[in-house]
Amino acid sequence: MSLLQDLIPNLRQSGWRTSALGRRLFGPGERDILELCRMMMDSDGEYSSLVLAERIFDAYGELDDEKRLAFFHALNDEFDLDIEGLQSLAGEYANEPTPDRFRALGAAAEPRRQELFRRLNLAPGGTRRLVRMREDLLELVRAHPMLRRVDIDFRHLFASWFNRGFLVMQPVDWTTPAHILEKIIAYEAVHEIRSWEELRRRLEPSDRYCFAFFHPAMEDEPLVFVEVALTDHMPARIDEILDREREELDPDEASCAVFYSISNCHRGLAGVSFGNFLIKQVATRLKQSFPELRSFVTISPAPGFRRWLSSTEEDAARALPDGNTDADDLLPLAARYYLEAKSPSGEPLDPVARFHLRNGAELARLNAGADLSDKGREQSLGLMVNYVYDLARVEENHENYMKHHKVVCSSAVRKLLPT
Amino acid sequence: MSLLQDLIPNLRQSGWRTSALGRRLFGPGERDILELCRMMMDSDGEYSSLVLAERIFDAYGELDDEKRLAFFHALNDEFDLDIEGLQSLAGEYANEPTPDRFRALGAAAEPRRQELFRRLNLAPGGTRRLVRMREDLLELVRAHPMLRRVDIDFRHLFASWFNRGFLVMQPVDWTTPAHILEKIIAYEAVHEIRSWEELRRRLEPSDRYCFAFFHPAMEDEPLVFVEVALTDHMPARIDEILDREREELDPDEASCAVFYSISNCHRGLAGVSFGNFLIKQVATRLKQSFPELRSFVTISPAPGFRRWLSSTEEDAARALPDGNTDADDLLPLAARYYLEAKSPSGEPLDPVARFHLRNGAELARLNAGADLSDKGREQSLGLMVNYVYDLARVEENHENYMKHHKVVCSSAVRKLLPT
Amino acid sequence: MSLLQDLIPNLRQSGWRTSALGRRLFGPGERDILELCRMMMDSDGEYSSLVLAERIFDAYGELDDEKRLAFFHALNDEFDLDIEGLQSLAGEYANEPTPDRFRALGAAAEPRRQELFRRLNLAPGGTRRLVRMREDLLELVRAHPMLRRVDIDFRHLFASWFNRGFLVMQPVDWTTPAHILEKIIAYEAVHEIRSWEELRRRLEPSDRYCFAFFHPAMEDEPLVFVEVALTDHMPARIDEILDREREELDPDEASCAVFYSISNCHRGLAGVSFGNFLIKQVATRLKQSFPELRSFVTISPAPGFRRWLSSTEEDAARALPDGNTDADDLLPLAARYYLEAKSPSGEPLDPVARFHLRNGAELARLNAGADLSDKGREQSLGLMVNYVYDLARVEENHENYMKHHKVVCSSAVRKLLPT
Amino acid sequence: MSLLQDLIPNLRQSGWRTSALGRRLFGPGERDILELCRMMMDSDGEYSSLVLAERIFDAYGELDDEKRLAFFHALNDEFDLDIEGLQSLAGEYANEPTPDRFRALGAAAEPRRQELFRRLNLAPGGTRRLVRMREDLLELVRAHPMLRRVDIDFRHLFASWFNRGFLVMQPVDWTTPAHILEKIIAYEAVHEIRSWEELRRRLEPSDRYCFAFFHPAMEDEPLVFVEVALTDHMPARIDEILDREREELDPDEASCAVFYSISNCHRGLAGVSFGNFLIKQVATRLKQSFPELRSFVTISPAPGFRRWLSSTEEDAARALPDGNTDADDLLPLAARYYLEAKSPSGEPLDPVARFHLRNGAELARLNAGADLSDKGREQSLGLMVNYVYDLARVEENHENYMKHHKVVCSSAVRKLLPT
Repeated sequence: MSLLQDLIPNLRQSGWRTSALGRRLFGPGERDILELCRMMMDSDGEYSSLVLAERIFDAYGELDDEKRLAFFHALNDEFDLDIEGLQSLAGEYANEPTPDRFRALGAAAEPRRQELFRRLNLAPGGTRRLVRMREDLLELVRAHPMLRRVDIDFRHLFASWFNRGFLVMQPVDWTTPAHILEKIIAYEAVHEIRSWEELRRRLEPSDRYCFAFFHPAMEDEPLVFVEVALTDHMPARIDEILDREREELDPDEASCAVFYSISNCHRGLAGVSFGNFLIKQVATRLKQSFPELRSFVTISPAPGFRRWLSSTEEDAARALPDGNTDADDLLPLAARYYLEAKSPSGEPLDPVARFHLRNGAELARLNAGADLSDKGREQSLGLMVNYVYDLARVEENHENYMKHHKVVCSSAVRKLLPT
Repeated sequence: MSLLQDLIPNLRQSGWRTSALGRRLFGPGERDILELCRMMMDSDGEYSSLVLAERIFDAYGELDDEKRLAFFHALNDEFDLDIEGLQSLAGEYANEPTPDRFRALGAAAEPRRQELFRRLNLAPGGTRRLVRMREDLLELVRAHPMLRRVDIDFRHLFASWFNRGFLVMQPVDWTTPAHILEKIIAYEAVHEIRSWEELRRRLEPSDRYCFAFFHPAMEDEPLVFVEVALTDHMPARIDEILDREREELDPDEASCAVFYSISNCHRGLAGVSFGNFLIKQVATRLKQSFPELRSFVTISPAPGFRRWLSSTEEDAARALPDGNTDADDLLPLAARYYLEAKSPSGEPLDPVARFHLRNGAELARLNAGADLSDKGREQSLGLMVNYVYDLARVEENHENYMKHHKVVCSSAVRKLLPT
Repeated sequence: MSLLQDLIPNLRQSGWRTSALGRRLFGPGERDILELCRMMMDSDGEYSSLVLAERIFDAYGELDDEKRLAFFHALNDEFDLDIEGLQSLAGEYANEPTPDRFRALGAAAEPRRQELFRRLNLAPGGTRRLVRMREDLLELVRAHPMLRRVDIDFRHLFASWFNRGFLVMQPVDWTTPAHILEKIIAYEAVHEIRSWEELRRRLEPSDRYCFAFFHPAMEDEPLVFVEVALTDHMPARIDEILDREREELDPDEASCAVFYSISNCHRGLAGVSFGNFLIKQVATRLKQSFPELRSFVTISPAPGFRRWLSSTEEDAARALPDGNTDADDLLPLAARYYLEAKSPSGEPLDPVARFHLRNGAELARLNAGADLSDKGREQSLGLMVNYVYDLARVEENHENYMKHHKVVCSSAVRKLLPT
Repeated sequence: MSLLQDLIPNLRQSGWRTSALGRRLFGPGERDILELCRMMMDSDGEYSSLVLAERIFDAYGELDDEKRLAFFHALNDEFDLDIEGLQSLAGEYANEPTPDRFRALGAAAEPRRQELFRRLNLAPGGTRRLVRMREDLLELVRAHPMLRRVDIDFRHLFASWFNRGFLVMQPVDWTTPAHILEKIIAYEAVHEIRSWEELRRRLEPSDRYCFAFFHPAMEDEPLVFVEVALTDHMPARIDEILDREREELDPDEASCAVFYSISNCHRGLAGVSFGNFLIKQVATRLKQSFPELRSFVTISPAPGFRRWLSSTEEDAARALPDGNTDADDLLPLAARYYLEAKSPSGEPLDPVARFHLRNGAELARLNAGADLSDKGREQSLGLMVNYVYDLARVEENHENYMKHHKVVCSSAVRKLLPT
């Protein structure tokens, strides 16, 4: 496909492994991963770089836990920026801001591991392998917070490579290639898909749709996907959507599009923004196909509800052991969770709420007993939430939320708050 | 196509221009381009950003020469980095390198105009418009060298956006869409294409090929393209290729592929590397289609030859007024130009030579009286050069050139050097 | 692309030309085209057939006028049906209609040239070459009416191969491959396109569109194409559309789509129906893109007007020498041409009228002085016609026209008739 | 997609059902299928035809066994050809073969049901539905042999619609759309695929391939597909291929491509030829990808072996109850089956043998105990056969087989014949 990926097979086939260059690169015996990294950083040639990138990824795959941690520590320290050099150049630039000093300063301000990652990225599948590397790192960062310096560079580079402007939305349906579909099965994070048959039930009926977002940086890998059900009303329970015995609806008669599952596919891309209009985009596409649609809503989980309740309202949490709880007891607590519990930055505590509010949604209804699965009871005492996307107000809502963290909320929800 | 480009029409159609947000963004009357830039930098919302980016590009298009220069000066100064802040943060980091300080330092080391360009880039066609903006800037930099600071940021961001890993090679032929073909006509920089008929003569015959390199950052815009003629020998004059009366060759009987024209399409991408294996890539593709091909060569211009000659060998330059010059006089001088005249970095002076040597080529033959066009006589006294790509040695040559600036050269050329 | 087309190169490359089979097929020296046809009909093998089909097409291309006529006469006579055999089998079948007799009867009723054409059709580009062969035949049929028997078989097979169900409509615009665009230039039959620049003026502006119909039987070859201008009124003169100085219209503000040129591309497909809803199809597509469009009209030539006038109204024809004629004189005659002049089958004399009426159009307005080009004056004394497609009535109009040849006509036209 | 398929939804949406035309077509209450067929044959309009075709297919789907038989009998008799008219026109033509008489004769020689089928074919999915209709018919023909007249017309039309020249070969792999893959699962006729996991084992490994043949007459429906295993030897037992524990082979090291399963997908297309070079085509494609491949072989079933044995060699059949039979006993009988047992036309009795021999294969080896599945024991006493495709001799073999039914056979097989 891409140019560089074409070159690697050439590398393998050609007889030059036995040349001076080849012998140096493929060398005798094993080489330590850090030694390979240093060789790659010293290399001037594009070919050497490519070959070494391959070898480094292979070596990384062989590392055990301990060595992997050591590798990240080396990235953190040995491949950090040269702070003394930076200070000296900053002094010079402050003195007289010439273009040459500006360029030198910019180079000095960049940790060496950024260039390392950039060179690794040119290997076939390099981006994917770096995303997985960051997944490993994120696991380690909790116990080793200093490693966050490496993570900051990962995130900085990913934000640049996954240039939002190239993001593309594609429908996923029963005519989608199987190797994409198996990823939908694997990555579904909200309501598990257990088999190809279950997948088909979410894709093939004429009142079921799915849209995924792709990026050329990782083609064939969905980044985010949204599952949609067309209905004639806003659902109060997830079973209304997932029930196998439900009757199919003629999509031309549907008035409501329900976004019932939204999954981020790659933990290694955590914190990399794909923009705040994904749902609006899907809604707009659906509206083109089905002009009769009048409302665009979600039926969403409340993943942080029980945790919050336990931490702040111990008694209530103990008294509300599962999803069969009386709505009269549960909903006022839920309203407080959504409207009063805030993160340090002033946003709602609930991560799903933050996602939809940034996307311009409004908080429309809280539903008790809405998700009686084990996970639903455990995380949220059965609570589910309807967010509404009013296409005429999405932009205004988004801007207001981004600026003031203003949560647009129905009066029905507001009334639930204890007065 | 892309998500963000879909949003803009929505912006235009929806009635929200009259909303509070709309009124603020589209405001009454004209706004100064710098005022718009400041508004965009202060904006939190994605929508505001998009709308303002559009307005800024429109305003930029209206600037006259004087105002354009003022705009770049403002980018250079007002949107520069905060050097005092950077020094202070560098001091803290040197003291204790915490992740938070690391992040703050990284942010401070980045001039504000980088974020400005990133936001502009999200507008429809943003990349293309920024590339053109840099073209304007490059014209001004000569007379205003301080503006090179802005240029350094352009180049830094372009290098990141035009991620080499996504570069794709596509054949260009008579079945290529017309809007691409008209760009081939427009961008041909070596041997001008004067009409659609002339274009067809370079694309349609079975012994003529063209390959272009594309990148998703600017789809529908070739970045570099290479024109190829299949022949039965290495040509000594460009007329052998371009002659309208030539006889077409059965491509299965061709032994030689001649790269007779290589054009970079966008001055605004000057200095952004697309890697060093473009020609190898084209050669490999050709070899797959025509296994009988034995040699891969160029017939290349010598654009800096006369200038060098005039500057160093005044007498010779005066004595060699045009392309009819006797080869015996010209070629020894040419050999010195290629083998002895070096840039400060130690590379050959000739830019075309640098391109091919980086790509792994070898200097094979110098040809007098090879380009008798006005341009050919004027730039190079009719001289043209054959570089040879030996597919088995391209990697080794590239690595040696990148490391030691070693020029691989035929003995025929070497013998021309005065002893 | 297709399987059989893949086999031919194999044929050429493999060494089997020297095998017994190869020697027989490629034989020594020239062979007469009829001899080759007989060999192909006697052949049992698929390979022999393919090879011989190629040789027959090559031989056909070499025929001079006289030999070509002789070839068609041989097709007409030697490769006709065996009428005596047919009579005998019909008698048996009348006696007892067994399946075996049914099959034998069906085979006997088919002239041998049908099988000949079917085998020729398997050669690469076979369909295209047969279509061109029929073009030649149609020229000869006038002087040699008996040859129409051959033509009937051509038409029968083409109707089957160009199965209407596979017809596909594609937009043609400035992003269309050049080898298709050059056919648009070549095949434009109504208002000539003189250059690539003129083509661009018909394709690139946002108020200009073109749609072509393709069929897999002859991919890369448009069969019919329609050029469309978006306007704010129904034009009375072709210059309103073709004027180079006209102002471009924002397509979202257009109320009217004008089909100003409709070209059949292949004379060799004369009489092969592509169905009667081509224009409705284009109109429906445009309506989806531009919901504001309110009317769908043509500005059409009247190719048979002067001929009819000369034949029936000699005086009038003499008195109306060109397109500057006073409308008061011309239009009543035109109204009679459209409403009263009928072919033997009871349809209007004018072929363009027949096309649009079958497609469900209504005759809306006659325009004098509407086409002042040489061709326009010569064929139609400057007359042009607006047909209107009322999307809600197209089906009803079509059915009524097909059944009763009923011409739906505006009262304005009807009033022009002399009372 | 296609034009006509676009029209049907228009039909449904538009308000014209209440028009005079609409009322006539959709009429009050149910209509008998034959009545609808007569209406369609009498209709002049394209729209009526389309609407009625839809209604006829719907009505056909509702028929019970008895009514379906009655429907086919009506097709056979009422929609047959008019033999008296044919005889009369044949007499006239014999008298003087004018083009008009020729045309009339051709029309009369065609049973009316051909036009009926052609009109039905224009409905969306018409071809697929007609193919299924013929499947029903083929079941009935055994008990009602006179219905074969209808079948002859089906086959005649299908042969024309499934124009061999449009057949396209496509690889099927794990990136193929799921709705195609599920058909591979459904249509696999030789070695059943029980799950998506088993499908993946046949598609994803780098030593496993699958190619399907498609035709635009029934897009998204494979017509024939071939499963291939790359190996380092010619397998003697099917388990060598299907074993789940086998080790994957590096395809660049494979010397042998084994066609281990070839499935025709549609019984309703029985007798419609897709040409005789399908396997050669697949082999050629594989050879391009893997130039190291030296031999192209099958491991094929012997579906008629036990039946033949029971009918001709009762004692032997009784003595050879299953696949564990001693090869010394079985193989001489098998050799007689392949080399001596002939159909009335002089071809081998075994249908799989006929397919491969027509395709140009050679009979290479007989393997006892090669398929120990229930089906393998039951049909063929465990026997499997290797056919070999020698790419240099395929054409010659094909031609010789088609002309003389000559079976090319290895000496190993020939020696098995009892002398």
